[in-house]
Amino acid sequence: MKRIISSILLLLSVSQALPQSTTTQGKLYSDETLADLEKIQSAAIASDYAYQQTAYLSNNIGPRLSGSKQAQRAVEYVADEMRKLGAEVRLQKLKVPHWERGIETGELVKFPGMGDGTTQKVVLTALGGSVATGTTGLTADIVVVDNYDQLNKLGRAGVEGKIVLFNAKFDQALSDSGFGIQAYGQAVQYRGGGATAAARLGAVASLVRSAGGSQNRLAHTGGVRYTDRITKIPAAAMSYEDAETIAYLAKMGQVRIHLVLTPKINSDADSYNVIADLKGSEKPDEVVIVSGHLDSWDLGTGALDDAAGIAVSMQVLKLVKDLGLKPKRTIRFIAYMNEENGLVGGTEYAAEQRANIGKHFAAIESDLGASNTVGILFAGKSEALPYLEPISKVLLKQGSALVQQQPGVAADIGPLTQLGVPSFAPWFDTRTYFNYHHTAADTFDKVDPKLLAKCGSMMAVLAYGLANLEQPLPR
Amino acid sequence: MKRIISSILLLLSVSQALPQSTTTQGKLYSDETLADLEKIQSAAIASDYAYQQTAYLSNNIGPRLSGSKQAQRAVEYVADEMRKLGAEVRLQKLKVPHWERGIETGELVKFPGMGDGTTQKVVLTALGGSVATGTTGLTADIVVVDNYDQLNKLGRAGVEGKIVLFNAKFDQALSDSGFGIQAYGQAVQYRGGGATAAARLGAVASLVRSAGGSQNRLAHTGGVRYTDRITKIPAAAMSYEDAETIAYLAKMGQVRIHLVLTPKINSDADSYNVIADLKGSEKPDEVVIVSGHLDSWDLGTGALDDAAGIAVSMQVLKLVKDLGLKPKRTIRFIAYMNEENGLVGGTEYAAEQRANIGKHFAAIESDLGASNTVGILFAGKSEALPYLEPISKVLLKQGSALVQQQPGVAADIGPLTQLGVPSFAPWFDTRTYFNYHHTAADTFDKVDPKLLAKCGSMMAVLAYGLANLEQPLPR
Repeated sequence: MKRIISSILLLLSVSQALPQSTTTQGKLYSDETLADLEKIQSAAIASDYAYQQTAYLSNNIGPRLSGSKQAQRAVEYVADEMRKLGAEVRLQKLKVPHWERGIETGELVKFPGMGDGTTQKVVLTALGGSVATGTTGLTADIVVVDNYDQLNKLGRAGVEGKIVLFNAKFDQALSDSGFGIQAYGQAVQYRGGGATAAARLGAVASLVRSAGGSQNRLAHTGGVRYTDRITKIPAAAMSYEDAETIAYLAKMGQVRIHLVLTPKINSDADSYNVIADLKGSEKPDEVVIVSGHLDSWDLGTGALDDAAGIAVSMQVLKLVKDLGLKPKRTIRFIAYMNEENGLVGGTEYAAEQRANIGKHFAAIESDLGASNTVGILFAGKSEALPYLEPISKVLLKQGSALVQQQPGVAADIGPLTQLGVPSFAPWFDTRTYFNYHHTAADTFDKVDPKLLAKCGSMMAVLAYGLANLEQPLPR
Repeated sequence: MKRIISSILLLLSVSQALPQSTTTQGKLYSDETLADLEKIQSAAIASDYAYQQTAYLSNNIGPRLSGSKQAQRAVEYVADEMRKLGAEVRLQKLKVPHWERGIETGELVKFPGMGDGTTQKVVLTALGGSVATGTTGLTADIVVVDNYDQLNKLGRAGVEGKIVLFNAKFDQALSDSGFGIQAYGQAVQYRGGGATAAARLGAVASLVRSAGGSQNRLAHTGGVRYTDRITKIPAAAMSYEDAETIAYLAKMGQVRIHLVLTPKINSDADSYNVIADLKGSEKPDEVVIVSGHLDSWDLGTGALDDAAGIAVSMQVLKLVKDLGLKPKRTIRFIAYMNEENGLVGGTEYAAEQRANIGKHFAAIESDLGASNTVGILFAGKSEALPYLEPISKVLLKQGSALVQQQPGVAADIGPLTQLGVPSFAPWFDTRTYFNYHHTAADTFDKVDPKLLAKCGSMMAVLAYGLANLEQPLPR
């Protein structure tokens, strides 16, 4: 989960619950389809398939950063599982970034009150795509800013030759109020853009306070964005605690750090989107996508981000097959590759399908964890909202009946959304998600099987419903 | 905080609240003393002295493992601060263990579902005092047990040449119910004794699931106990998450780990207890001790364990001096060294004072963090309980009026308790303490200034009250 944040942030006010049918004519769903949706829901709630798949991806395969052996192993595993379900499997070849984490250490070598040799270690982690410091590292004074305004006020005179620490605080109160995405969106701008802003003023490296809500000495990785013609400087995130400590020390006087980051930027690697079709019985050329992203960051095992999304998407095909159902349109599972550090999979799929975009009836992606699903996020025409009402009625039974319209709902299907494909995502309670995501603590134990089953049910009910909608969806 | 756990565990049922005066005769505290206690309380609640001292010890000095330069810096700093307050300062020389953490990595090199080269990193940390694996490390299969019974059932045939993972779960429900110490006491036995139990059966290394409640990929260190004539094998703690993952994988098949631990066991180092007296006006030879331990584990900055305890003890002298009060007995501040990995400071102080033990009127130590204080823990004669009643009445105003009697209350003053010195400690709400203690997340931000002020008030009210008690305390 990455790029869609800012657009969600801007438009969250456009929210709706259980829209009323006022504009549709004729039947939307057959009685048989409506009955099947209830069967799917019951089966999904009772199934542990998605939970076991999340476990396998997290524990047996592990972190799946683009270009890694684990990512390739995940491609093969998921393709095999889809073949076992009788789906038509295709691997879409991609060239993806292949960045590898190296040594990463930080040590305060001068600070107020320091005694003879009493250096202090700092917990930090390189941001994805960061250049290296060289194996001997670099040593420089830290200048602490809370935001870009403070940085710019310091100017080149205050920044040149130094390391900038962007100490923007995660708004925990906002997150606790249910607006985790917004809190994250505020904090994460420095992770992406801080290094370039600091480099413009001559900084030699950039550090950011971790962009999530964790207060457990965890550094929160994620991608750094460099800009052409601006020097690429090493970029890392430090834990909340270390940012607090350095801000405290810097108020008292000089703080100097020795920083070693040795990541490797390899040539782009071959990789794949895994695409698996369960062919439609009446309109096989029209597709409803269920998806997540198969790659993950490398610190944790990517259980919440996004093994869970892959697993609930796999489960849609599993449930339809086990129940012997025949969707009218094709249900297409996609395990996108390289959401986290490039979005190559989502971009390339949309590019490949550009001429065929009209046949993409709908796209669903789950990429915000595995906590409680309160409803559906929807990106598309308001005229389509009434078409969702019967589906929301089914989802009301599991407490997931809200519908919220916004311009984008998930990163990988974002390019399809831009091309006019009605797009959907589970709407999660994200109060805890940003305490774990992109950290070493994004591990399988964070997944609650009952909540994951609810999410799996939503994915399957929504996908099967759309695949059997008796009318075109306004777009 | 370390050794006292098991005795607390056994006797927690012996609990009392606001004991009634039935056995004392004559005045316990003068009206002036009672008025002074209220002044002390108000001043303590309003003071940020302890908070600033906790910050300095945690942030400006940092981790203070016995024998380290930081520990020595802390000795000098605290001694200086006490001199500034006009106290008579003495350094009691000690020889303390000097163990230094080295490289510590774990990597799963064989497990069910593993692909070509898809090894997985494990988050772990060497236990204090552990021997090294050698720089190239060791590689062996893991055998997972939940307890000693399971280990013994496996016997030598099941354990020899392997690495044992003691996967005893921290009882979070027990901790959430207010019994954090008990939950910790259950889990920690494997950290201390696991390596020896495993080595008896031929294991080549011992791993324990972290003994605290953290679920944030944090490894929880602490001391390992070796036994003469049993091979000392390397010992480490892994995070909750990694223990869960390995237990999951081991149920499916073979799990093999490559383990590198390179700690160094140096010769014992010179170090010191810092002892600072505020002399009594009437009975200067009788002492009331206020104390904490100055050393800490090395992963975090030892803010909760136990900079906070040192700081609230320092503050007792600060408050008495600022208010211009004259305690009748001597108030003695002690910053004990080496509580965490040897208890040398507490042991040596008691040994030095053995002939003078009758003049130790009372001893107070704070070493269970800085959360809300609900009352006083007391180790001593039941006959002494009524003498605490007037003090508890003062503490009732800050919601800290409970008194609980138990055989021991804190580690460093334990030897004094054993010699009959009435012993006291703040009684904390420990529901969150074991999520941080002994981990990298034991940092200054975990200290709440308002709660620390309450603890500081309790320490000062109790110490000054006892120093001015009009009668001897039954012992």
